[in-house]
Amino acid sequence: MDIPALREKHPDHWMKAAAIRMLAVDAVQAANSGHPGMPMGMADVATVLFEKHLKFDPSRPDWPDRDRFVLSAGHGSMLIYALLHLTGYEDMTIEEIKNFRQWGAKTAGHPEYGHAQGIETTTGPLGQGISTAVGMATAEEMLRARFGKKVQDHYTYVIAGDGCLMEGISHEAIGFAGKQKLSKLIVLWDNNSISIDGEVTLSDITDQRKRFQAAGWQVLACDGHDPDDIDRVLTEAKKSKKPTMIDCKTHIGFGSSKQDTAKAHGSPLGEDEIVKLRKIYDWPHPAFTIPNEIASQWKAIGERGAEDRKAWEGRFADLSDQRQKEFNRVFNLEPSKKLSARIKALKKQISEEAPKVATRKSSEMVLEVVNPIMPENIGGSADLTGSNNTLTADLGIFDVKNRKGRYVHYGIREHGMAAIMNGLVLHGGIRPYGGTFMAFVDYARGAMRLSSLMGIPVTYVMTHDSIGLGEDGPTHQPVEHLAICRATPNSYTFRPCDTIETAEAWEIALTSQKTPSVLALSRQGLPTLRTEHRNSNLVTKGAYVLAEAEGKRQAVLIATGSEVEIAMKARDILQEAGIGTRVVSMPCMELFAEQDDAYRRKILPPGPVRVAVEAALRDGGWDRWLLGERGSEKKAGFVGMEGFGASAPAPTLYEEFGITPEAVAGKVRDLIG
Amino acid sequence: MDIPALREKHPDHWMKAAAIRMLAVDAVQAANSGHPGMPMGMADVATVLFEKHLKFDPSRPDWPDRDRFVLSAGHGSMLIYALLHLTGYEDMTIEEIKNFRQWGAKTAGHPEYGHAQGIETTTGPLGQGISTAVGMATAEEMLRARFGKKVQDHYTYVIAGDGCLMEGISHEAIGFAGKQKLSKLIVLWDNNSISIDGEVTLSDITDQRKRFQAAGWQVLACDGHDPDDIDRVLTEAKKSKKPTMIDCKTHIGFGSSKQDTAKAHGSPLGEDEIVKLRKIYDWPHPAFTIPNEIASQWKAIGERGAEDRKAWEGRFADLSDQRQKEFNRVFNLEPSKKLSARIKALKKQISEEAPKVATRKSSEMVLEVVNPIMPENIGGSADLTGSNNTLTADLGIFDVKNRKGRYVHYGIREHGMAAIMNGLVLHGGIRPYGGTFMAFVDYARGAMRLSSLMGIPVTYVMTHDSIGLGEDGPTHQPVEHLAICRATPNSYTFRPCDTIETAEAWEIALTSQKTPSVLALSRQGLPTLRTEHRNSNLVTKGAYVLAEAEGKRQAVLIATGSEVEIAMKARDILQEAGIGTRVVSMPCMELFAEQDDAYRRKILPPGPVRVAVEAALRDGGWDRWLLGERGSEKKAGFVGMEGFGASAPAPTLYEEFGITPEAVAGKVRDLIG
Repeated sequence: MDIPALREKHPDHWMKAAAIRMLAVDAVQAANSGHPGMPMGMADVATVLFEKHLKFDPSRPDWPDRDRFVLSAGHGSMLIYALLHLTGYEDMTIEEIKNFRQWGAKTAGHPEYGHAQGIETTTGPLGQGISTAVGMATAEEMLRARFGKKVQDHYTYVIAGDGCLMEGISHEAIGFAGKQKLSKLIVLWDNNSISIDGEVTLSDITDQRKRFQAAGWQVLACDGHDPDDIDRVLTEAKKSKKPTMIDCKTHIGFGSSKQDTAKAHGSPLGEDEIVKLRKIYDWPHPAFTIPNEIASQWKAIGERGAEDRKAWEGRFADLSDQRQKEFNRVFNLEPSKKLSARIKALKKQISEEAPKVATRKSSEMVLEVVNPIMPENIGGSADLTGSNNTLTADLGIFDVKNRKGRYVHYGIREHGMAAIMNGLVLHGGIRPYGGTFMAFVDYARGAMRLSSLMGIPVTYVMTHDSIGLGEDGPTHQPVEHLAICRATPNSYTFRPCDTIETAEAWEIALTSQKTPSVLALSRQGLPTLRTEHRNSNLVTKGAYVLAEAEGKRQAVLIATGSEVEIAMKARDILQEAGIGTRVVSMPCMELFAEQDDAYRRKILPPGPVRVAVEAALRDGGWDRWLLGERGSEKKAGFVGMEGFGASAPAPTLYEEFGITPEAVAGKVRDLIG
Repeated sequence: MDIPALREKHPDHWMKAAAIRMLAVDAVQAANSGHPGMPMGMADVATVLFEKHLKFDPSRPDWPDRDRFVLSAGHGSMLIYALLHLTGYEDMTIEEIKNFRQWGAKTAGHPEYGHAQGIETTTGPLGQGISTAVGMATAEEMLRARFGKKVQDHYTYVIAGDGCLMEGISHEAIGFAGKQKLSKLIVLWDNNSISIDGEVTLSDITDQRKRFQAAGWQVLACDGHDPDDIDRVLTEAKKSKKPTMIDCKTHIGFGSSKQDTAKAHGSPLGEDEIVKLRKIYDWPHPAFTIPNEIASQWKAIGERGAEDRKAWEGRFADLSDQRQKEFNRVFNLEPSKKLSARIKALKKQISEEAPKVATRKSSEMVLEVVNPIMPENIGGSADLTGSNNTLTADLGIFDVKNRKGRYVHYGIREHGMAAIMNGLVLHGGIRPYGGTFMAFVDYARGAMRLSSLMGIPVTYVMTHDSIGLGEDGPTHQPVEHLAICRATPNSYTFRPCDTIETAEAWEIALTSQKTPSVLALSRQGLPTLRTEHRNSNLVTKGAYVLAEAEGKRQAVLIATGSEVEIAMKARDILQEAGIGTRVVSMPCMELFAEQDDAYRRKILPPGPVRVAVEAALRDGGWDRWLLGERGSEKKAGFVGMEGFGASAPAPTLYEEFGITPEAVAGKVRDLIG
């Protein structure tokens, strides 16, 4: 259907969609930056979705049973900003639209979670939105099973472009959704045949319909500009027993002279073009002006959901007080009140028994204690369950037949797992953790960064965290990954030295509301070093004195994780030689950096030589603690890795790479001179 | 077919395959570590491939026209080690097999490129092998077009497991191969239905055959234990006009009591089990012992290719001397002899004209000059051609219809692009570069790390390298990515400040033989700061004095890339106030770190205050240059980012985040006190 025919056949629809289109076009023009083509192409689909299908209430943006809408093609951000404005989200004023892409505006270049109501997740890096939405749809299944259909029963809609579908992460997420039969997930593919470089066929000839079918999806198709066809296909999709992909054939930059070309994608159309477009669209109104009639139609759409929401509130009120409280607790990311006591009890027991176990095993011991009291904990692994020690006795496997299962077999999909976990948190009601090998931070980075940027408490259980994994060799041995994680803003990287520190790190992760946590855990067995029980959580300080110098304090050894044991042995050697040596355990650099100057000075006093020990590169933030904090180059040393690892048994590797108590003691002696 | 039937029907084949199986089983047992199940399952396929199809000559492992064989399921490393040993690769002795996974052995836990002959690429991180092989097959197409079928005409074979196919990168690579109709690429899927956590169906129900067909592949299938069926299907695959995926139905841990279970995957079978297996296999020989008869059959297979190779040498000799030299030059990664002169001429011209351009544009100016003289340069971008400025006038687009095209539209596939570029280099004859936004280092990391680990000269053209990209916002603004790249061993991260430095960085990248290069390039325009022509390449030193202090040297400003301009303006302010200020441009920290102490001291003399300026996090290696190198905490400052960026025009962001000449000058004044 061409525009005149569309306008004639569906005049009301046309004007509503035109309002979206013109807001997008005008905002991009005003900003002199942005992506008009996609909102112009998908305005019809979005209009029908919001008008007739999406369950939402702008007056209660956080209503837990709302449908989730994810704009995976995040560059088309003006589409969602226009929709939020038109349907009456309070904070999305016309001023915000006018300030598109300006400092301080809620209308960032790409939709940013937390900037404005109604933005369910940050998108822009392609493929993240669709994968995060898979997590949201998974959360809905889990919570429906847990709390019942009366309070949790909604759809998750995604608008995805060719870029999203070309990215590898989409393969991982689509495969997961197909296996899990996430029937309430509906992906609207903006099939406009154009990417930035030109025709999609320049780089891809994939039959997307067949591809989704191969992954276990239902596939439907529609004319993405025909409201009747869009409505028909959405109605059909909602009945599916599988996730549904809808192939929406659209025209990028619909109606403009740049229609169906890459030129419509990522730059303002230009004033002349916009003048023409107003005629083509039959939209004579000035920029940022929506005529009352159209505005009130959109407002009515925004008000449509209030009834549903009120009915839901009634059903929610029917839950027992306890169920209501529990529902609210998990949606508010409040940890169990029993958590602290459980952690303390475990620490007490461990400090007495002093087992020698790998910290990945320590992590399992903690999870065995906390998972039963925190039903919102959802575990999982990217096909390394036995290695990551992420499965505890009571969880059960999440599956089509067991939606109450709390353990997720994510498959060999690290990136997908991370994005799905983002979706689980963002949906609300879930606190996820997932495991893989530390080296595969590389695979998961795209989504891990978004956990940090969005400020959401995903826990990454990263085992096999150094050359200590041994024979698997350099591909599997992280050396720069602590540096990567520590350099990422708004996240905490924990590298505990024993079970006690692991329990303390987990306690922080499980109480976090605004930050993701990375737990770097050993493959190899480690002794319990904290054998004196302390109720307080020492990891919250980031670093603390594990063993004080005897006699005159001449050296301070700083270590993390599996190398704290080495530092303690080095201390024995040095003390034996009459060199008073303090050992500082530093399980979390970021937390230590947040302590006040007095505390940091207490732990790292000026004067003694400082040697840090970590089976990783010095780049992981060490210079600050060695050279800074009143340290000095002449009195500082580092024992660790200088490059990639190698394949051999772990003890051999520690010897060969010179990460030994003797090497540490030798370094101290050299520095003392 | 069960084992007795197989043994009876194909006795010779059985024994050859059993030799592989037992070497794998015995080596894993001796190492008490490793993965026996996959070699046991794929031994039949590998035997038929090496016996009847693979074109190779162990006496000339680097023969440029050999077929490439990639073990994408790298955990099954004993499969390739056994094959290399049995077919007579000189360095793969039985001692190496006995030392599987031990320090210094060529038989690392996963196959490591460069450790032993016949290992075409490092594998282990799943999905990398198949994606790298796509690059090799692409290289073959390119070189066949360039040098002719007589000297370049071979297949690329891959063994891939379920893990490889579940990883997102496989989607990117498969899509690329399908679009490019890489008909000489043959992937053998080890379809054993098992992953580490158990049945593949725990996490995936993808119809892999349909999926590959959707991506434009031919799909065939065989019984992975029936040599006739395997031979038939390989013969068929070689005739295809599309890439071929062969679904090889196999049994992991074939013949053992752990067959068809995850228990066969990743740990030794145990002595008792091996005793039983020797009977089942009819293999009474002691561990690591191959009977002469079987050894000589395998040796004959290894010798089979010598004739082909000699014939190839004859055809190669028929090329003109000039063609031979050129072929050898590009396979030896020697840069054009004209390169140095071209770079110097460009530098001279630029220093005179002093244009103000973004360094991404500078990069294009360099490429316009060097691409015509280095036909081995193959450019590309992950669908950001116009933004990365990677396409030059003479390249032409590589496509099914234009195999001589030298520009690759990789599609929205950063990870796949990086792996494909690895494959292009590893194949030989190609020097690739590829572009995306710097923030998408996150997506490409898995393969970028392998460029470093393997030591191969891939060039990553990473534009939009800071908040300077402006409105696209924090998802697209790298802040920790310089830290990530600099922390990666064996790679160089260049952040040039103008066109001159960009030319010098490119010269280093284009002459590199053992290291990948990351070029971090600005979106925003930058002035030419090097207006005095110097023939020598100053970037090779990593850092140098761009502007000396006038009067007493009280401050040294250190900056990279787009912030060198800011440092220069700060210098103006400070000199105006009588504070003698040196500006050091530091385009490559890693190279500066490699300079001798005297040079480093010359550039960063003790005494003056030091302030570094970089629109990124201090974690990117700055503490060493500020606090170390005879610096001091009290006299050091950093002006840069402290967290994620924001969406706004670039000049606003620089103001709001306080990265301005005034802020730098203020910091110096504070430190001088």
